[in-house]
Amino acid sequence: MRYYPAPESAIMMPHLIEAVREAFIDHGNGSCEMPPKSYVTLPGGDFRTMPSYLPGLRIAGVKVVNVHPDNRTKGLPTVMGMIILLDPPSGKPVAILNATALTDLRTGAAAAVATEVLSSEKTGTLGIIGAGRQALSGLLAISEVFQVESVKVWSRNEKTATRFTEKFPDLNITVTNLEQASDATVLLTATPSTKSLIKDEWIADGTHINAIGADAPGKQELDPNLLTRSQIFVDDRKQAVHSGEVNVPIRDGLLSAEDITGTLGEVLIGKIGRSDPESVTIFDSTGIAITDLAAASVALQKGSFIELPYEHGF
Amino acid sequence: MRYYPAPESAIMMPHLIEAVREAFIDHGNGSCEMPPKSYVTLPGGDFRTMPSYLPGLRIAGVKVVNVHPDNRTKGLPTVMGMIILLDPPSGKPVAILNATALTDLRTGAAAAVATEVLSSEKTGTLGIIGAGRQALSGLLAISEVFQVESVKVWSRNEKTATRFTEKFPDLNITVTNLEQASDATVLLTATPSTKSLIKDEWIADGTHINAIGADAPGKQELDPNLLTRSQIFVDDRKQAVHSGEVNVPIRDGLLSAEDITGTLGEVLIGKIGRSDPESVTIFDSTGIAITDLAAASVALQKGSFIELPYEHGF
Repeated sequence: MRYYPAPESAIMMPHLIEAVREAFIDHGNGSCEMPPKSYVTLPGGDFRTMPSYLPGLRIAGVKVVNVHPDNRTKGLPTVMGMIILLDPPSGKPVAILNATALTDLRTGAAAAVATEVLSSEKTGTLGIIGAGRQALSGLLAISEVFQVESVKVWSRNEKTATRFTEKFPDLNITVTNLEQASDATVLLTATPSTKSLIKDEWIADGTHINAIGADAPGKQELDPNLLTRSQIFVDDRKQAVHSGEVNVPIRDGLLSAEDITGTLGEVLIGKIGRSDPESVTIFDSTGIAITDLAAASVALQKGSFIELPYEHGF
Repeated sequence: MRYYPAPESAIMMPHLIEAVREAFIDHGNGSCEMPPKSYVTLPGGDFRTMPSYLPGLRIAGVKVVNVHPDNRTKGLPTVMGMIILLDPPSGKPVAILNATALTDLRTGAAAAVATEVLSSEKTGTLGIIGAGRQALSGLLAISEVFQVESVKVWSRNEKTATRFTEKFPDLNITVTNLEQASDATVLLTATPSTKSLIKDEWIADGTHINAIGADAPGKQELDPNLLTRSQIFVDDRKQAVHSGEVNVPIRDGLLSAEDITGTLGEVLIGKIGRSDPESVTIFDSTGIAITDLAAASVALQKGSFIELPYEHGF
């Protein structure tokens, strides 16, 4: 059995985007197994368990990942993960991967896949709400599929936003206020907010929004009016209704599950799509298990590993 | 982060039984978190994902375990497992354990806990149906709480049964036919059968049965008439109805969920119990996640481990 301590270092973003796109296509075609993500409450946070099987990649396994919002005060990331992979025909555990950075990367890659097929423009301004690890990977990934002319970043903590911009000395990147950052060709929202931050009137027609912050019941980043005005594409219907950007407005009766236009997989297989260039499109990303398998499959190809004993006892 | 390649070698059965008993008590008191086990179908088998949190032991984590009935032809166990443990207050992964033998041992320990509180006799004959790894661990564990005067073993494959008896040269242990093995003070059924094997008329009043083979929809080992005649105690109601010994008779309308007397945890906290010495009692064991955490907690105390790097990437 192999342990990959830093699988992210073996991953080239274009390969990851390709693998994540293929996983969404399998999801659109119904050719994967993915039971609902399950949540266990812990002191100060929770952990989620995400099993799945992707026959196309011949890969099966489980990601275990926590969310502890106050971990930064302990010098730890909010989100840390592990993936266990099994050999599908025997069920034998074959690999364990550190999935902390991998989780950020695959989340960014999913936003890139959505941007590629849903944005009406191929070039323009990128607005980023939040300046954490998901914002970083989102910028890296979206840049691969969208010609970024300028980047506007907002964070609740301005210092965090400034530090974020300093990581990209070669980009035209500035810290702005929330309204200014929302005025963009493509918008990425990546905060842990439980109150809507982005007002409907700030969003121009034709904008594409990747809403990746909301991934648990009670979380939301967008004005419900913005949702009712937009075409909503989700990564997975059940997960989105339970814990995505749409979960709070649906709970509050402002939106219904029928208002979801479709899934990203359905867009990729040509079943549905952006209705016209003036629509606002929203990709409501909760993070789905098969994209973790896709990321793992890319890491396995070139990643460094430690060989571990795995015997069967008595 | 620590990897325990052979945690079973650090485990003394009496300690394991004690830890598993405590876990069932927490279950009886409702002081644990345990979402339903989830199943993913693979070619030739499946895998199950079992997350849980035991505040009493300050331990949280997930077991991933497969069931591939034809693995023996590949020289692999039918069931192989891994456990990932998290630090509850931060969610950080702290340990990975090989859970193959650990799974067998905790299953045996659960049968011992049930035998201790449900058997009307403290000494007598032990009948064992099946001669695989669960039969082995069941014998080892039950012997700790029940004075075994003689053991009768049946297996579909008589050679397997004979090899099993040869492992216990110091016991009064014999291979018998199915009916003879069923005539015992305490009975352990540990086969992957999908048809009832044990006839109602073979079971004497006062017998205690540990039915541990059925752990997936469609599996069963006992005559439905035996179930309707007996007091049924389960490890977990939802899991038992879904995949335990009662799942097929309930599906077929021969039994209802209301016929379940209670859980083993409820017996341990004194809420319910054996009604009289002449009752037949059945412990319907599906295998619950918190007993895996209990077994892991025992292994952590003395087990050998390999220290692994676990950094947080970019």
